Amino acid sequence: MKLIGLRLEFDGSDYVGWQRQLNGPSVQAVVEEALEQLLGTAVRLTSSGRTDAGVHARGMVASFSTPRELPLRAYREGLNRLLPAAIAVRQAWEAPPEFHPRFAATGKWYRYHIHCAAVRSPLLRRCSWHLRQPLNVAAMAGAAAAFVGRHDFAAFRSSGCDAVTTEREIFGAAVAADGAEVVFDVRGSGFLRNMVRVMTGTLVEIGLGKRPVADVAALLAGGRREEAGLTAPPQGLCLMEVWYPPELGADLQAGTGTL
Amino acid sequence: MKLIGLRLEFDGSDYVGWQRQLNGPSVQAVVEEALEQLLGTAVRLTSSGRTDAGVHARGMVASFSTPRELPLRAYREGLNRLLPAAIAVRQAWEAPPEFHPRFAATGKWYRYHIHCAAVRSPLLRRCSWHLRQPLNVAAMAGAAAAFVGRHDFAAFRSSGCDAVTTEREIFGAAVAADGAEVVFDVRGSGFLRNMVRVMTGTLVEIGLGKRPVADVAALLAGGRREEAGLTAPPQGLCLMEVWYPPELGADLQAGTGTL
Repeated sequence: MKLIGLRLEFDGSDYVGWQRQLNGPSVQAVVEEALEQLLGTAVRLTSSGRTDAGVHARGMVASFSTPRELPLRAYREGLNRLLPAAIAVRQAWEAPPEFHPRFAATGKWYRYHIHCAAVRSPLLRRCSWHLRQPLNVAAMAGAAAAFVGRHDFAAFRSSGCDAVTTEREIFGAAVAADGAEVVFDVRGSGFLRNMVRVMTGTLVEIGLGKRPVADVAALLAGGRREEAGLTAPPQGLCLMEVWYPPELGADLQAGTGTL
Repeated sequence: MKLIGLRLEFDGSDYVGWQRQLNGPSVQAVVEEALEQLLGTAVRLTSSGRTDAGVHARGMVASFSTPRELPLRAYREGLNRLLPAAIAVRQAWEAPPEFHPRFAATGKWYRYHIHCAAVRSPLLRRCSWHLRQPLNVAAMAGAAAAFVGRHDFAAFRSSGCDAVTTEREIFGAAVAADGAEVVFDVRGSGFLRNMVRVMTGTLVEIGLGKRPVADVAALLAGGRREEAGLTAPPQGLCLMEVWYPPELGADLQAGTGTL
């Protein structure tokens, strides 16, 4: 058996999220159907995590086992011919047997796009959160810095999140403005359900002057979900990258795959 | 009667272009229907020009006459509530009677987005041309500079273009790369049908090494359409801005409108 890793980009606008669900098309189901067409047998994907309905990805990672001995190019190019325009395989690689997209991950990078303008933008609408009011980006950047380090993120998650432990480590968190667009980048060891969206919602309330910058530290010191900000809408969020130890062959930059 | 100017942004992906046509929904028809809902009477828009099916706009300009005395905010905010998410009014202003979106324009700015990568990008697919091969951006930038000035653009237009004169003045033309994205910006007095898309197609053939840089000057000196490059696909193109003399009240930056 071969263990194949895939790095996927997708526009999540028209999907119910990564995971298979009964209420509509999921990215997982569409990729599994393309794999079945390519390989002639049903395949089940294991992924680095889930994404919510409407959330995008530049670097979602998934894996599957197969007895077939196809060249790696066939996975990338064959799947890209079979997949809809909203989903693409950026990289396929042969992973060692111990590779697991979720348990082997050493970190993830998420990016959240906000568009601040009096008028909504048709061209940005599918991948940003539109706000009519201006944001104090310096206040948001100062507040974001407080996320860095190992903290209890119990206040920054969906009320439906059932994770046993709520401690996570954030490696970096930055807010920057480019004209009317404000971008929040966050890198960390792992993320709770809706965590980046609640972090974003809290930062936006700080940027609007509705909360003090010190709220982030206070919430990390033992706040409850109800005390944090609202959950930012999904279309502004993108899973940019998932990182692994180099010996697992998943390094996009090192060229060990087929990109 | 009042003459009202509108500056519109739209995602052209799902439209047959600006102009009303029988074969599908046009941006013009959708905006006219929203205006009719707002004003209670049929309204016909005059525009700064047409856009092809699939082409986007950040700054399409159109105007209409109405006996109604609505505040300008009502046009922008009222229309934005009635229009679909793919179309928005960025600015509404009261124009002097001599204003005409096409004949009064002093210049236009178009931008063309190219994405160069081995794999197609789901997140960029709606607003860029995907090329698998790398481009020589320096060669393209050198070739683009030859467009600047007053020239006969007869070789750089659709075979169906029926313009009487084919001389146009280009104020600026630049090609720049930002990672895998290559952007062609061109500003000029006016453009023939498909002109920016044929310019882009020719520049891409130069960037791929299929033509010499000197081809642009040769084509401007008296080439025929068949000798220029292919017509680049529509989804990479965006009409960024249309300029007018300041006394016509259409200056987005000067804040004479309602942005």
